Amino acid sequence: MLVALAGGVGAARFLRGLVQVVAPEDVTVIGNTGDDDWFHGLLVCPDLDTVTYTLAGAENPEMGWGLAGETFHAVDALERYGAETWFRLGDRDLATHLYRTERVRAGVSLSQVTREITEAWKVRPRLLPMSDSPVSTRIDAREDDGRVREVRMQEWFVRDRSEPPVVAVRFEGAETAAPSPGVLDSLEHADTILICPSNPVISIGPILAVPGVRAVLERRRDRVVGVSPIVAGAPIKGPADRLMGPLGIEVSCVGVAREYREFCSTLVIDAGDAARASEVDGLGVRAVVADTVMRDARVAAALARHALAAVA
Amino acid sequence: MLVALAGGVGAARFLRGLVQVVAPEDVTVIGNTGDDDWFHGLLVCPDLDTVTYTLAGAENPEMGWGLAGETFHAVDALERYGAETWFRLGDRDLATHLYRTERVRAGVSLSQVTREITEAWKVRPRLLPMSDSPVSTRIDAREDDGRVREVRMQEWFVRDRSEPPVVAVRFEGAETAAPSPGVLDSLEHADTILICPSNPVISIGPILAVPGVRAVLERRRDRVVGVSPIVAGAPIKGPADRLMGPLGIEVSCVGVAREYREFCSTLVIDAGDAARASEVDGLGVRAVVADTVMRDARVAAALARHALAAVA
Repeated sequence: MLVALAGGVGAARFLRGLVQVVAPEDVTVIGNTGDDDWFHGLLVCPDLDTVTYTLAGAENPEMGWGLAGETFHAVDALERYGAETWFRLGDRDLATHLYRTERVRAGVSLSQVTREITEAWKVRPRLLPMSDSPVSTRIDAREDDGRVREVRMQEWFVRDRSEPPVVAVRFEGAETAAPSPGVLDSLEHADTILICPSNPVISIGPILAVPGVRAVLERRRDRVVGVSPIVAGAPIKGPADRLMGPLGIEVSCVGVAREYREFCSTLVIDAGDAARASEVDGLGVRAVVADTVMRDARVAAALARHALAAVA
Repeated sequence: MLVALAGGVGAARFLRGLVQVVAPEDVTVIGNTGDDDWFHGLLVCPDLDTVTYTLAGAENPEMGWGLAGETFHAVDALERYGAETWFRLGDRDLATHLYRTERVRAGVSLSQVTREITEAWKVRPRLLPMSDSPVSTRIDAREDDGRVREVRMQEWFVRDRSEPPVVAVRFEGAETAAPSPGVLDSLEHADTILICPSNPVISIGPILAVPGVRAVLERRRDRVVGVSPIVAGAPIKGPADRLMGPLGIEVSCVGVAREYREFCSTLVIDAGDAARASEVDGLGVRAVVADTVMRDARVAAALARHALAAVA
């Protein structure tokens, strides 16, 4: 049995490779919900949906998020009412948020709704939100006027295009959030625990902040293998550099290794970073070199095979 | 100052004519909310929206409801989740329901949200929901198995295509619903009160069921003029015949006159029903003959002019 800690686009692409090389039913994905937010009265879970849509083969291939062939008529029409429409919810995607919100308002847990949604998409791996309680990633960012303001993750990332310099990151609600049913148990019994190539700060960070998760990873460190999302000193996608740097994490595979060393025995780094393997090893994390730039599903499958072999 | 009691499509077409012949700012429309219902967690107000979209010139001209050039991607996508999608919410139309629902959930009254929506559409007449409290039209209908079941108006009308024979109609919540701010006051001070060519049972009926409305109409009977929605023994549009007949109301302009006689001094009937004018007169309701089939805005304007002249 395999468990994967996952953020959004990078994780989803990796998972699509993973299910080529292992039985999808043997995979449990623990998804980040720190990016979840409410738009127009609807609960949106960007990372859970990106994983779902990608594993269903329905994602927008250019953007990596949202649905292929999507239209944006509803969100455009919301502008008439003065609504903030910088978060571009597609019309078909809206169906997911409408369904989830109605169920959650009816008292159904996020993990139960997530199961229903993945079943509707015929996604075979089990996708667990890290917690059924709300955890909200908050970013203290320095704005144009020099003042530091707290914004929600999507505000900083989408509305502000990751531009305001980051001062601090917090996972509101994490301390009192219980892991969702199956999270700790699956980690405890996994043959291998994978840390997908996701943003260490705001994708993996919130999962680690859920009480109990980090402790079980530390205890099972020899079964944990990560994939560095940083290649040649820059993230493949997303704003990881804008977060790692200001928080004192070197923007490199070495920085990732230092961040993960206490709970991760092995780190897959990109072939382009082979020269830094000894530095990773020097931190007590075994470096495995592979092609980590997932141009297509074949590369993703090979990468998954490398990661699994590393702790076999 | 004019006040109009309005249902959906027929009323909206009449009102579009009315605002050609009087200053739109002088018109207050009291809209039926008995058809309101919740779909996918969203509050939908079909009659208020039909009036709004039509007065904005944005309605779908073939259907009379919904928006022109509409798409249905979200509602189609909801089918994946097993949702009931017989109520066809368009993508652009969804924006209205999202906005309204978020505001209402935030504690804003339906009349306030309705004002915001009509302002966003630059609709100049004032549109008041009959009440800010929920009133829900319930229909006891005999189903295929012979049993009588209570269904909500949209279930009977849209889902069941008005087919199950009607046994009884009720306006749940009406007895305790207060008229929304401005309803009684505008009726009290109106120069003319118009009853739009709407379904007497389920469009005008719920408005009359709101405490206080019928009494003020009765008191001001000489200022009240109705337009018969029934022409040559059949409704121009909608299921009025399926409701009037079983409830003992003759499906004709005479039946409408009998229904309205206590609070309506004048009824505009169609030229095709001219032969029945004396029967209407015989009920104590003055019959005025005009072309009531609103093929276009010009006919609608002429009809409005006739109606206004009738009580001038």
